[in-house]
Amino acid sequence: MKNLKTLGILGGMGPEATSYLFNLIIKNTKVEKDQDHIPVVIYNYPQIPDRTQNIVENGESPLLYMIKGMKLLEKAKADLVIIPCNTAHYYIPEINRYSTLPIMNMIELSAGFVKESGATKIGVLATTGTIRTRLYQKTLEKMGLEFIAPTEQEQEEMVMEAVYGKKGVKAGYKKEPRKLLKEISERLVQRGAQAIIAGCTEIPLVLCSKDVSVLLVNPMEILAKAAVKFCKE
Amino acid sequence: MKNLKTLGILGGMGPEATSYLFNLIIKNTKVEKDQDHIPVVIYNYPQIPDRTQNIVENGESPLLYMIKGMKLLEKAKADLVIIPCNTAHYYIPEINRYSTLPIMNMIELSAGFVKESGATKIGVLATTGTIRTRLYQKTLEKMGLEFIAPTEQEQEEMVMEAVYGKKGVKAGYKKEPRKLLKEISERLVQRGAQAIIAGCTEIPLVLCSKDVSVLLVNPMEILAKAAVKFCKE
Repeated sequence: MKNLKTLGILGGMGPEATSYLFNLIIKNTKVEKDQDHIPVVIYNYPQIPDRTQNIVENGESPLLYMIKGMKLLEKAKADLVIIPCNTAHYYIPEINRYSTLPIMNMIELSAGFVKESGATKIGVLATTGTIRTRLYQKTLEKMGLEFIAPTEQEQEEMVMEAVYGKKGVKAGYKKEPRKLLKEISERLVQRGAQAIIAGCTEIPLVLCSKDVSVLLVNPMEILAKAAVKFCKE
Repeated sequence: MKNLKTLGILGGMGPEATSYLFNLIIKNTKVEKDQDHIPVVIYNYPQIPDRTQNIVENGESPLLYMIKGMKLLEKAKADLVIIPCNTAHYYIPEINRYSTLPIMNMIELSAGFVKESGATKIGVLATTGTIRTRLYQKTLEKMGLEFIAPTEQEQEEMVMEAVYGKKGVKAGYKKEPRKLLKEISERLVQRGAQAIIAGCTEIPLVLCSKDVSVLLVNPMEILAKAAVKFCKE
């Protein structure tokens, strides 16, 4: 118990996803009493500029804010940092120039998991920011897997609408985004996807395994399990 | 948006309650986008010695650990601190000697809320630690309200069993603790309670309003709403 490592969460991108990840960490820790849980420090700063806006529309960069968060997690003596935002993973190489705290990469973990499942054609639902950065595409292709994304129109009208729309997840809605994400998942399956990666942290908040006819991979759950394992070892 | 205050959570007592409070804060914030949410820094350190064990059995004091957490929240520039553990409120006067960060008092807020509801006889479900400290009793009586607690035997076999038992909330169970807490709530109602305060942060994780025939007060919800209001003002 004395040797538990401290987990840092660089959060707020968004807050719902941060809270969901924290909850997944607790649920995926075997305990008999409070003291068996791992120590967690969360920096939840929702004012971090939107990652997709920065990448797609050249909006303000979130980098400085993320580094500020890393500095606080350093002060808190975190041993490992995780980031509940897929798009934010784009900035990891830059962050690593300013902080030596190790960051566990959710995208690489998820690609490894889906490869182990035996699927070879992988559908990815993610923000336009994540798609443009080719974060998932590069990682999957490096592992010899085929990457399938929605068309540009579907990306705008279905995926982005479900996450950022007036009745989207980030505005607190569940029903409408779930319907949109279910529909686009099935379209990707019809185009050959043998697994779907829910590659935006807002997506698994509304889309469930039973909504999709193939394996639905939740990168947040894979990340939570790996982080708990690391901190317990 | 620029003037949002930063909320600090001194958590880990326990982690489930901390996660639940974080979630309540998000749910009780009106937003259109991530950036409308308040900044939150969470120090979730489950290794803080058990408060009830310290008070009842003279176990290790949690005070030093709590002060360490306050110091980190100071570094994070928190404007206000909340603590998702009723028993921990016993240490607030001591903490205030070491940190100038204001702490919002969940027990005083809850007593004020129940007084406004018009109830005069108030049943309190809390850990033996909280009961022994008379935290709720003193606060309610100061407001002219009558305090009703379980008998010592009920306290051990029903309330403490539901929270700390092998099949209790802190061990991750829901069904058994809910049954016990429902039963003891009704016993307090039969003895005249016109409202029940769920005065241990683990209790509202399993006991719902519909389980109790009178007003069930959830101090965590009252605290979350008051904290969001403070940080948005």
